[in-house]
Amino acid sequence: MSTGDDTHLVERHLASQELLKGGFLHVVRDTVALPDGSTGTREYVRHPGAVVVVPMLDDGRVVVERQYRYPISRVVTEFPAGKLDAGEDPLVCGKRELLEETGYSAREWARAGEMHNAIAYSDEVIHIYFARGLQAGQRKLDQGEFLDVLAVPPSQLFEAAQRGELTDAKTLTCMLWLQNVLAGTWVLDWQS
Amino acid sequence: MSTGDDTHLVERHLASQELLKGGFLHVVRDTVALPDGSTGTREYVRHPGAVVVVPMLDDGRVVVERQYRYPISRVVTEFPAGKLDAGEDPLVCGKRELLEETGYSAREWARAGEMHNAIAYSDEVIHIYFARGLQAGQRKLDQGEFLDVLAVPPSQLFEAAQRGELTDAKTLTCMLWLQNVLAGTWVLDWQS
Repeated sequence: MSTGDDTHLVERHLASQELLKGGFLHVVRDTVALPDGSTGTREYVRHPGAVVVVPMLDDGRVVVERQYRYPISRVVTEFPAGKLDAGEDPLVCGKRELLEETGYSAREWARAGEMHNAIAYSDEVIHIYFARGLQAGQRKLDQGEFLDVLAVPPSQLFEAAQRGELTDAKTLTCMLWLQNVLAGTWVLDWQS
Repeated sequence: MSTGDDTHLVERHLASQELLKGGFLHVVRDTVALPDGSTGTREYVRHPGAVVVVPMLDDGRVVVERQYRYPISRVVTEFPAGKLDAGEDPLVCGKRELLEETGYSAREWARAGEMHNAIAYSDEVIHIYFARGLQAGQRKLDQGEFLDVLAVPPSQLFEAAQRGELTDAKTLTCMLWLQNVLAGTWVLDWQS
């Protein structure tokens, strides 16, 4: 959504410094030229990117997971998602994560779009896919991964969101897509 | 959205270690007891929390910002938002950020809910507020903050999201709320 010339807003990279190379998180601090010519610093997480999948069962229900999310100390209802392996195509990642975490494989896939979930301090992009023609199979969770899989009517998700019981931003973003796809106002390009 | 007993999913805190205390980002690594009794580590950003505001003009348009987001190297269309100061009430923060960034003050406010935007690696919660009865005034940007303010019809935002031109997850989550509030299916509790 451009409104014309944005050059007066752009910050330019001057230098990078590695702040943290953890077992999981990678954080850098860049020195940047601000729009007024002064310099500033920007600290952010370097993330490989991720994929989230909205799996639609033939009976109208969608597949979600219940997983304990340690940073917020609660069990979260969310659509299946996972990080891209190095160099991995997002669709391949979506198929892999859906199978590993839920056991489902899908006959048709559609790419909806993408989201950036923490633009103030992460370069993470999450690619959004829809899957249908689902077939149940055997899941293969990663070591140290614990989650429940359940199928729910979309109405139940929307009611939970309205009540404030569903707070995962990637799942809520997928629900904006789901609501408009189900209403027929946003059309997906399904591929076999 | 609970489905009964979640205790078999819970991870328990054992110990904490500070990994990074940057100028902006604070990262910790916790040792945790996993559901199967083994131990693991969880690295995540400690965040003070934030507020996002959906400002609704009397003519039906909403107020959005265009801001360069360095981590993803692009100018982003987003609803006004900002971090909580230490001990700050979310509503007070919302009023402050709306005024500072856009110059608008509002006669009525409604708390919609909250979202967690990076549950894999951040404890950030974003409180979602709607504002109406807007009055324009003078904005007061922070040092080093550069952003444009514009008013757009909601339909323009939904079309941009559908085309993939609007990717900020907090803004897309607010649009799920906005779509249902405008449709009358999700009702807000407005306070003067």
